[in-house]
Amino acid sequence: MPTLPLSPGSTIGILGGGQLGRMLSQAASRLGFDVVILDPEENSPAGRVSRGQIVAEYDDPTALTVLGRVCDVVTFEFENVPAASIERLAEAGALVAPGPTALAVAQDRVDEKTFLNAVGATTVDFVAVDTLDDLTAAIQHLGTPSLLKTRREGYDGKGQVWIRDAAEAEAAFEAIAGRPAILEARAAFTRELSIIAARSQSGEIAVYPLGENTHTKGVLKTTLAPAVTDAATDARAREIAEAILDGLDYVGVLGVELFDIPGQDGQAGGLLVNEIAPRVHNTGHWTQDGCGCDQFEQHIRAITGWPLGATAAHARVEMTNLLGDEIDQWTNLSAEPDVRLHLYGKTEARPGRKMAHVNRVRSLA
Amino acid sequence: MPTLPLSPGSTIGILGGGQLGRMLSQAASRLGFDVVILDPEENSPAGRVSRGQIVAEYDDPTALTVLGRVCDVVTFEFENVPAASIERLAEAGALVAPGPTALAVAQDRVDEKTFLNAVGATTVDFVAVDTLDDLTAAIQHLGTPSLLKTRREGYDGKGQVWIRDAAEAEAAFEAIAGRPAILEARAAFTRELSIIAARSQSGEIAVYPLGENTHTKGVLKTTLAPAVTDAATDARAREIAEAILDGLDYVGVLGVELFDIPGQDGQAGGLLVNEIAPRVHNTGHWTQDGCGCDQFEQHIRAITGWPLGATAAHARVEMTNLLGDEIDQWTNLSAEPDVRLHLYGKTEARPGRKMAHVNRVRSLA
Repeated sequence: MPTLPLSPGSTIGILGGGQLGRMLSQAASRLGFDVVILDPEENSPAGRVSRGQIVAEYDDPTALTVLGRVCDVVTFEFENVPAASIERLAEAGALVAPGPTALAVAQDRVDEKTFLNAVGATTVDFVAVDTLDDLTAAIQHLGTPSLLKTRREGYDGKGQVWIRDAAEAEAAFEAIAGRPAILEARAAFTRELSIIAARSQSGEIAVYPLGENTHTKGVLKTTLAPAVTDAATDARAREIAEAILDGLDYVGVLGVELFDIPGQDGQAGGLLVNEIAPRVHNTGHWTQDGCGCDQFEQHIRAITGWPLGATAAHARVEMTNLLGDEIDQWTNLSAEPDVRLHLYGKTEARPGRKMAHVNRVRSLA
Repeated sequence: MPTLPLSPGSTIGILGGGQLGRMLSQAASRLGFDVVILDPEENSPAGRVSRGQIVAEYDDPTALTVLGRVCDVVTFEFENVPAASIERLAEAGALVAPGPTALAVAQDRVDEKTFLNAVGATTVDFVAVDTLDDLTAAIQHLGTPSLLKTRREGYDGKGQVWIRDAAEAEAAFEAIAGRPAILEARAAFTRELSIIAARSQSGEIAVYPLGENTHTKGVLKTTLAPAVTDAATDARAREIAEAILDGLDYVGVLGVELFDIPGQDGQAGGLLVNEIAPRVHNTGHWTQDGCGCDQFEQHIRAITGWPLGATAAHARVEMTNLLGDEIDQWTNLSAEPDVRLHLYGKTEARPGRKMAHVNRVRSLA
């Protein structure tokens, strides 16, 4: 295992060569690190701005051994990394961050919600579903509407189906191909917030201000940050983030999606955790133009054993994703003085594909 | 010649793989461009964060032809680019920016000062020196102390010698090996300022606030920006920058070093131009953490035919170069919340070598 903190000139490996890997690589190079990407797609967005790329599958044993040997620390831009891949990287001598526990928890929605509730980060009620009978019983327990999701994989609204009536159980179970699943009660939330937080190798924690998110067809469209909130909500969100980070003995940046539940009928409202992502997160892109140390540099600082950077906002930022052919808006956007462009270098603008984001920067006041 | 503005996905070539090329490449990739570096040193700082690097000399005809063919536009991080290299790039089909006129003027100190005075950007008095007799006559004309510099090449105080007495003429001429030279009168300045400005393919001009510079042993040590100045000085500096940019029909970012001359004995003071650099400039590094669009993105915008970005300062920044083993300060600097680190990925910390810079960010008020 390498000695921490890692010196500039050390090499960081990243599994995944998409836009998150690209922005992590750019942040790492600002701090003087070299970066090697592992991604099966040649000339990936991240590979193009890095020292090198190994073109191979994420479970290719030889590729993982090579990556583990040339890198001092290895991290990833997505959570569905096979546990065996992590083991092989560690065997080859690389530090891996975040660690296998955080990944395992985040890969299974039942394990994730069980963990969250155990550390006091409350979620909606849920029931594990393995069979159609389980599902029928779960619907009776949680009522409708309720949301059926596969336990593993699925993102941006994929692998999930709303059940509005008990009679839809069979169709819903078929829609997810009968895979191991979770049924979640519906949260009566008014808005989705998210909080980005980091924990260092020494257990230091840094938390960014809350962002407020909007979605289109299940895909994040905008984040406004710092969100307009009250002090109690800010404090509760920070408490939730800290409980999760400490509970997972986490190292790196983590994103937490929250439901903001209004108080009603004399009952207090509060925050429920929707899900966590053990990585830099789309709802944290605003930090690039709103904070002294953005989430990408923060992740690199955390995994290399550096002290964490400043998270206070110096501007109010509206982040907007450009999906598919919305990328064609670059000509107009490039002429707007308050817009900061972040393009991912993807050649093919498939419908719904995340091609870029822009941060509109305004004064905090 | 390519159609402007260049679309994201286009390829930008950069002659020179040092820190300026590196930061240009990082800015270009944020806008979705691919970058190819030409530099004789393998794995150069810029090559490591770019799509590719051609390892060859700057006058290698084959390398230049290849670079000109794969790139839509080619630029450079230093001014001593051979004119024949520029021609070859253009023949291979690439747009080259800034153009050959700007480079030719900046490569010869006599031509540079002649041009500057012609467009109203006043310099110190000077005399061209080809022989020892010329030098003796020049010293008589300009008095001592005066500064003897080679006409071509030399930077960071190299290739120049102060003459404090007429008797030192012969030794000084030998010190510069009798090369074609220029003798410059001494400027009675109180401080060095610099201004970074850009001109787009369509002739649009954007100017950053002035910076105030300090040097150690002829090498830039700090820039404080925006500098504390009066409105007349700001206006005059902007006027000078515009005259130079328009006079050269310039495309890209240009740095102008200025002497701030105090008024005395009833005579008005003013600004004299020390020298110009037809490229991004060390005294503009503060813009990375002080302005919406930094000098690197601005240069990329200018040469690709994009509209120019916002140049107003949103923070006061003190930029400090880390030279040689000062890079070892990274451990302390990484823990300072107001410090933004920019490391160049150089492996060998030779004495005086520019290894990194830091921007200390403070509020404008």
